Amino acid sequence: METSNIIEQTRSVMVKMVTDAWLAQNDRIDKLVGSLTDEQIAARTAPDRNTGTYIFGHLIAVSDRIVEALGWGGRSYPELDEPFLFKPDGSDLPRPSVSQLREYWTNVNKTISAGMATMQPADWFTRHSTVSAEDFEKEPHRNKLNILLSRSIHTSNHLGQLTYLKEKQEG
Amino acid sequence: METSNIIEQTRSVMVKMVTDAWLAQNDRIDKLVGSLTDEQIAARTAPDRNTGTYIFGHLIAVSDRIVEALGWGGRSYPELDEPFLFKPDGSDLPRPSVSQLREYWTNVNKTISAGMATMQPADWFTRHSTVSAEDFEKEPHRNKLNILLSRSIHTSNHLGQLTYLKEKQEG
Repeated sequence: METSNIIEQTRSVMVKMVTDAWLAQNDRIDKLVGSLTDEQIAARTAPDRNTGTYIFGHLIAVSDRIVEALGWGGRSYPELDEPFLFKPDGSDLPRPSVSQLREYWTNVNKTISAGMATMQPADWFTRHSTVSAEDFEKEPHRNKLNILLSRSIHTSNHLGQLTYLKEKQEG
Repeated sequence: METSNIIEQTRSVMVKMVTDAWLAQNDRIDKLVGSLTDEQIAARTAPDRNTGTYIFGHLIAVSDRIVEALGWGGRSYPELDEPFLFKPDGSDLPRPSVSQLREYWTNVNKTISAGMATMQPADWFTRHSTVSAEDFEKEPHRNKLNILLSRSIHTSNHLGQLTYLKEKQEG
């Protein structure tokens, strides 16, 4: 095998590991949110803790920012930042309905899937938009794939909380 | 640069991404658990949901299994599987005190750190003990590093729940 092929193959394995992880977490959010009514999502995940609406809106805002950080286009929903990222739950800021959030979630994931489809393995190891060229020279792990890795872990954190919206089953 | 060096460097970047993610999640658990009393950890994370003790024991059992899966040695705490992995919270099975769990947590993380220190970048891309050589041939992403990646995501899921043990602060 040619050298360039070996490197490409090594990168491909890594990309598969991380993109699979990302898609799996999003699939779990999809399934959970799809199984809940709007009222269930609007409830608090635990007494005095964030509502499902807040966490769901928060995840959509973070995903919308991924699109920009990875150079796939502009933000679709910058208006979500204030109510779901910068301010805590329960602020008086206007926010979309749960049913609108479902639509935004579907859309932003379509945009991300389309972006992912444009990437060659080597592209994932280039720097993302929030790291300078100089810093990237010294810290090549601050690449695009690492954005997807850290956001997968972030999604998982909130997925653990969102599961508390489900009716308690045995176990 | 020689070919082998380029491949090694590509692998190193990926190893750093995943091991950093693993260590960061564990550090967050460390800090959280360290900030809570035994009584706080023994409480439920939300009404009718798992206790902190159960989730903490569960994470230790999973980490203890990583040691074996990555070929770094045998299990230290196989007795945690029944009460924290195979059975739900609230079973009548005997289980260690929170203070013992704190000790186990420290120990298993030391074992994992020692194991990580023995690994060259290429080692991380070899198969783990629960995938056959034949399957690994077809699915090279099922490597040791992927175990650490999936377990980082798993830890994050439960970290999101464990944060509910903290006293509610503003925001």
